[in-house]
Amino acid sequence: MPKNINKITLVADVGGTNTRIALARNGSIDSTSIKRYANREFDSLHAVIKQYCETLSVDQITASCVAIAGPVENGTGRLTNLNWAMDQTGLKQVTGAETVAIINDLQAQAYALQDLPNSAFEKVLSSPAPHQEPLRHSTKLVIGVGTGCNAALALTDASGVRVPASETGHIGLPVRSQDDLDLALYLQKQHGFASVEHVLAGSGLETVYRYFAKTAGQAHNLSAQQIMAVMATESDPVARKTVQITVRLLAQLCADLALIHLPYGGIYLVGGVARALAPYLQRYEFATAFYAMGRFTQTMERFEIALVHDDYAALTGCANALHGLRG
Amino acid sequence: MPKNINKITLVADVGGTNTRIALARNGSIDSTSIKRYANREFDSLHAVIKQYCETLSVDQITASCVAIAGPVENGTGRLTNLNWAMDQTGLKQVTGAETVAIINDLQAQAYALQDLPNSAFEKVLSSPAPHQEPLRHSTKLVIGVGTGCNAALALTDASGVRVPASETGHIGLPVRSQDDLDLALYLQKQHGFASVEHVLAGSGLETVYRYFAKTAGQAHNLSAQQIMAVMATESDPVARKTVQITVRLLAQLCADLALIHLPYGGIYLVGGVARALAPYLQRYEFATAFYAMGRFTQTMERFEIALVHDDYAALTGCANALHGLRG
Repeated sequence: MPKNINKITLVADVGGTNTRIALARNGSIDSTSIKRYANREFDSLHAVIKQYCETLSVDQITASCVAIAGPVENGTGRLTNLNWAMDQTGLKQVTGAETVAIINDLQAQAYALQDLPNSAFEKVLSSPAPHQEPLRHSTKLVIGVGTGCNAALALTDASGVRVPASETGHIGLPVRSQDDLDLALYLQKQHGFASVEHVLAGSGLETVYRYFAKTAGQAHNLSAQQIMAVMATESDPVARKTVQITVRLLAQLCADLALIHLPYGGIYLVGGVARALAPYLQRYEFATAFYAMGRFTQTMERFEIALVHDDYAALTGCANALHGLRG
Repeated sequence: MPKNINKITLVADVGGTNTRIALARNGSIDSTSIKRYANREFDSLHAVIKQYCETLSVDQITASCVAIAGPVENGTGRLTNLNWAMDQTGLKQVTGAETVAIINDLQAQAYALQDLPNSAFEKVLSSPAPHQEPLRHSTKLVIGVGTGCNAALALTDASGVRVPASETGHIGLPVRSQDDLDLALYLQKQHGFASVEHVLAGSGLETVYRYFAKTAGQAHNLSAQQIMAVMATESDPVARKTVQITVRLLAQLCADLALIHLPYGGIYLVGGVARALAPYLQRYEFATAFYAMGRFTQTMERFEIALVHDDYAALTGCANALHGLRG
C-alpha cells in the first residue's frame, strides 16, 4: 500500500441547494474527484457522503472537513435552510476518518483565499492608499451575500491561518439615514428585528422589492433572480430602488466591518447575490458610502475590495482548515 | 551578573491623561516598580520613559511593550487625545531593549484577561444558557468606553493568545429606532458622521446631554463627571435621558459585536465611562436591548458580560503581549 494513501482527505461544501464533495491529497484538491449533488434528492448529508464514497470506491480516508451554510456549535453544524445537521461523531462514522472538522462555509472561503489564483479575484474597489504591511501577512475579510449573509476573518501569523467563527449576518442593519430606518422599521414588523441578512441575501432582495412595491402602491412579488433580470433591462423603478439601497447598505456593512477587523489584506465578497450586485456598485455609489466614515475616511482608503469567482473555493478552504488542525 | 536580569521588560500604559510604567520579570509585573505620571508635565512619551528609567536606575531592559490609547499602524502608535507618538526605533532607543512592541491599549486589556484575579470582574449580565466549550479556550471580547471607545478580541489556541487590532469605536452608531436616528442625525451635523464613539465616550456623554438639553429648550453644558453626579441625585431629567439612550446604545453595540465575534468566553467592559454607566444598566434595560436580536435571542443568552476593575490590567497585558511575541 503506497504511503500517501494515508493522506487522502474528504472535503465537502454543503450549501442550501447543493453539496459539493471532493478528495484532497496532501492538502490539494483532486479536481477529477469533484462531484456535485442536489440536496433535494437526499434525506441527509450522511446519505450524500455515503453515496460519494460508494461511487468513488474510496475507503482510506484519514481526515475529513465539512463546510456548512449555517451555524456550527460544539462541533455540530446545522444547515440554515434545510433540516440537516452533521456532528463530528457522524462524520467519523460515515467517512471512517480519524481527524474531522465541521466549519461554517464562510470560514472555508476564508481558509481558501491564500490558494486561489489571481484570476479568481475581480477588483471592485481599489485602494487609493494601500497599507504598507506585506499583504501575505495581513488580515483578510470575506463577506458572503448569497442564500444568507455572513463574514469570516482570516488571520495569518507564523503558525498559519486562523478563521474564527461568526454570525455577522444577524447583527442590526447599519442604518444611517431616514430611508434606511424606514426600511428597518418595516423589517422589524416582518421579522421582529431588522438584521443585515434581512436585506443582504436572496430573500432579502425580495423583501426589499416588496417593501418598495408596496410604497409605490403596487403588489408585485418578484424572485431575486427576476429582480436582477429586470434590473438589466432598466425597465422597473422598484427594482432600481431595491438595488440602490441594497448596494448602499452593503457598503455601510463593509465599512463597519473594515474598521472592526482592519483587513489590510483585503475584503473579499463571495456569494451569488454579491456577484449579482457587483455590476451596480459604481452606479449606486458603493465607494461614496464606503468612504463616508467621517475622520476615518483616510483609513477606509487603505482597504481593497474584490469579488471572488470560484465555485469550488470552499473545498480548498476545507483542505486548508484540516491542514491547519493537523499542522 | 545573575542570568534573569536579562529578562527585565519595561511596560507602559499610555492613556490620554496619565502614563503608567512598570517593570516585569519573566512575564509578571513587579508591583513595587509601578509609577504613574501626569502627561501634561512632559513634552513627549520619550521624556516620561526616560525619567522612569533614571528614577529606577534600570539599564538592563531587554524587551519593552507600550500600550497606546490610539491607533497603531506600521509599528507607530499615536495617542488620540494628545500629539504624542512612539515608534519601534524610538522605543528601542529610549529603553535599550532589543525586542519592542507597540500595541493599542484595548489590545493590552485583552492580553491581560487571562491573568486577572476573580476579584477584578463584576458580572453585569449573567448567561442564562452558558456556552458548553471550556471557557479557558474560548474567545473573549473587551469593549472599552472611556476617553474613547474601542474593542479588542482575545483569541486563544494552543499557540497562545492573539489580539488583532481594531478601530471599533469609529463604526456607525447602531441605530434601531427613530430616537436613535434623531440623535445620529444630530451627530452627523456636528461631526460629519455618527460614530459609536460620538456617544460611547466621555465627550460623547457630554454631546448627548447637550442634544437633549437643546431639545428641552435648555442650554446646559455639563461635563461627563457632572452628568454622572447629577444622575446620582436623580434631579435632572436631561441627564436621565442621556444615560438611558447611552445604556441602550451600549447594549446594541455589545449585541452586534457579540454576533460578529462570538465571544463565548465573555464580554468585558473596561474604562471610566463603562464603570460610571454600570449602576444604571439594569434600570435602563440593558439586558432587554442586548437580547432583542430576533431569532438570535437564544444565541445572545450564551454570552456573559462583566465589568473589569483593575487600573493596572493594561500593564499585565503588555507583559503578556511580549511573552507571546517571544514565545
